[in-house]
Amino acid sequence: MKIAIVSIGNELLSGDTTNTNATWIGKKLTDIGCTVIQQITIPDQAIPISNSLAQQCVLSPDFVIITGGLGPTDDDITRKTLFDFVGAESIFDEEYWAILSKRFKRFGMDIPDSNRNQALIPTNGDIIPNPVGSARGSKFDYNGTFLISLPGVPAEMEAMMKESIIPMILEMGVKPKSIKTIRTAGIPESALIEQIALATQKNHGCDIGYYPSLFGVDIRISNPKPDPVRNLFNEISDLLGVSVYGEGKKSFEEAVILLAMDKQKTISTAESCTGGLIGHRLTEISGSSNVFKGGLVVYSNEAKMKLLDIPINLLETKGAVSEETAKMMAENVKEKFKSDYGISVTGIAGPTGGTEEKPVGLVYIGLAQKKGVKVKEFHFGNDRKRNKLRTSQVALNWLRLSLLND
Amino acid sequence: MKIAIVSIGNELLSGDTTNTNATWIGKKLTDIGCTVIQQITIPDQAIPISNSLAQQCVLSPDFVIITGGLGPTDDDITRKTLFDFVGAESIFDEEYWAILSKRFKRFGMDIPDSNRNQALIPTNGDIIPNPVGSARGSKFDYNGTFLISLPGVPAEMEAMMKESIIPMILEMGVKPKSIKTIRTAGIPESALIEQIALATQKNHGCDIGYYPSLFGVDIRISNPKPDPVRNLFNEISDLLGVSVYGEGKKSFEEAVILLAMDKQKTISTAESCTGGLIGHRLTEISGSSNVFKGGLVVYSNEAKMKLLDIPINLLETKGAVSEETAKMMAENVKEKFKSDYGISVTGIAGPTGGTEEKPVGLVYIGLAQKKGVKVKEFHFGNDRKRNKLRTSQVALNWLRLSLLND
Repeated sequence: MKIAIVSIGNELLSGDTTNTNATWIGKKLTDIGCTVIQQITIPDQAIPISNSLAQQCVLSPDFVIITGGLGPTDDDITRKTLFDFVGAESIFDEEYWAILSKRFKRFGMDIPDSNRNQALIPTNGDIIPNPVGSARGSKFDYNGTFLISLPGVPAEMEAMMKESIIPMILEMGVKPKSIKTIRTAGIPESALIEQIALATQKNHGCDIGYYPSLFGVDIRISNPKPDPVRNLFNEISDLLGVSVYGEGKKSFEEAVILLAMDKQKTISTAESCTGGLIGHRLTEISGSSNVFKGGLVVYSNEAKMKLLDIPINLLETKGAVSEETAKMMAENVKEKFKSDYGISVTGIAGPTGGTEEKPVGLVYIGLAQKKGVKVKEFHFGNDRKRNKLRTSQVALNWLRLSLLND
Repeated sequence: MKIAIVSIGNELLSGDTTNTNATWIGKKLTDIGCTVIQQITIPDQAIPISNSLAQQCVLSPDFVIITGGLGPTDDDITRKTLFDFVGAESIFDEEYWAILSKRFKRFGMDIPDSNRNQALIPTNGDIIPNPVGSARGSKFDYNGTFLISLPGVPAEMEAMMKESIIPMILEMGVKPKSIKTIRTAGIPESALIEQIALATQKNHGCDIGYYPSLFGVDIRISNPKPDPVRNLFNEISDLLGVSVYGEGKKSFEEAVILLAMDKQKTISTAESCTGGLIGHRLTEISGSSNVFKGGLVVYSNEAKMKLLDIPINLLETKGAVSEETAKMMAENVKEKFKSDYGISVTGIAGPTGGTEEKPVGLVYIGLAQKKGVKVKEFHFGNDRKRNKLRTSQVALNWLRLSLLND
């Protein structure tokens, strides 16, 4: 199944926005066995849009996926150009307009007239519903090539691809590749590659890709047939042991929450430098209320004293960013919430606030549980946002590993 | 100065790699006053490469910047195809081969024969030096369009752009555009457009782009000259009033923190469904410790009772997700932290946990300040992560607007 992608948007050409939509579509469609033969980015203008559609159709792709240019404003002219290109007239969809108007009412607003073009539908094409936004897509059969137009907002485009386009392509009989992804945390890419060399250097016939991020390394194994993928997946997983937190699309946060639910353990947090990020990450998962009892964001010394009973004496002699403070924070938050685990973090997120003795990036993480409390020291560098993310990741991975042994 | 970008690489089409090179080149060249008219991504194959070069040249750009396909491995056929396209013969550059061989020796290796093609130079084009790698670029004048071929490794491409290509374009007399961005929050794109129609529908001569996200809408104004941009920027800003939180790259969180610092007001948070996200966002900004006193993540009823003194009676009669609970949470957290402002959120993030009376997406946000406490009700739909983000954004924007009047 051959795919061409047309991305519309001046902001993509000017580099104000990175074209992650093309990446996302390329990945999803390659995964189900399609081949992306070309991708083109063009400005929000009628002539480039119709020219590029004509150019893509010369390549006879099965699908041209067009993203962008479906918003309510006047720089969005995709709909008109596309309708003209395929020779469709537009009809005003009163029913959809009523739905849109109601939606605006719910937010306490009158719907502006500029939204009217979002209710236009073509005479000879299909409408693709948008489960998360107001701009619907359209689909035309143009000389054997399906032209699909989707909005450029990533969440909307993704929802519509998942709900409508991918199922449609799968129904047309494309053969998905066999793909399995191993998700790991707490081990750097180079160490991971060494640890699995025994399995990867054999003649397994699979493609292997490594995708590192701040949260860990994903290993993607693919082959037209499922057996070699399953075998290599199992061998690598065995070699990596507890570094593996999940497979496929399972998120790290989900792995932690499910593990805690499985072990019937509850969690509370006392966050200083992360400011609530750990609680935020845990509560991204539906059902987290079963195990996450809550947290304290003790950003000031005053809050540490008042809410967590950290003695002023300790803060003055050892400092807010110290092993001793982290220890007491973890113990006390566990007590306050009567949870099985108490996580604490205190550190200097930066970029300012460091001293020679306590530089920016210094972080203490504490973990209290039934069998006692431990504190670890880390040095995460100068970047505030990365520090916060890394701190939350190390803390949650420590919790995960402890839960595994609980 | 018109620019076309050709990105070569199967990994870009399959979505294994995001095309950040196109973003980088687009941004750098737009900033110095060029216009990127098209960008195309094609596979590592001779026919797509020569076809796309021909297509780009039809548009008569001043430059076609080609990235990728210059490595030593056999899937890299850009050089041969490009030389054929412009009718250049290749000569083997013994001198460069000697340099490359020496470089490999320094790393204790013999140079592989597969690197030989990196020493090929064209008979009728120029070589572009690579200060950080072994793959050099080339430059051809093809019927008045300069074809520039660069490696795909970002660090190498960037170094060569900075050292050779950008200076070359600047020397040809391109004039940097004047660009200003207005950042807004709390107003949907369509309403915003109506509100500024008085300014935008005049003959101002500027390009205007609208960039909506979950957090607000950015308005980007550009023109070759600074005066029209400044004038339109001021007019639009005046029409939008308090919806504008900043300009340029200023983040929303930064705007809130700086405003609170300016007004010398402190903030505390009581978060239920957002799980710490509001605190996390405030603490993304260096200096937030001056105004953010801390927060309580009261995810369970138990925590709401114990840490925030919400009476069990209220939770049982009105519910944790209710106007009354949100009100008391905001008041009590403000008291606990002795802050000027107390923000509370309580809601049903979803996707489960809703009832007919209290559906998923129902959120109450409370804001307590000296002059009293207010609560607002919202309905944010089914998606958990979006609900959390929207809730945090609405809460922080409400805080921002209140600080403005304080």
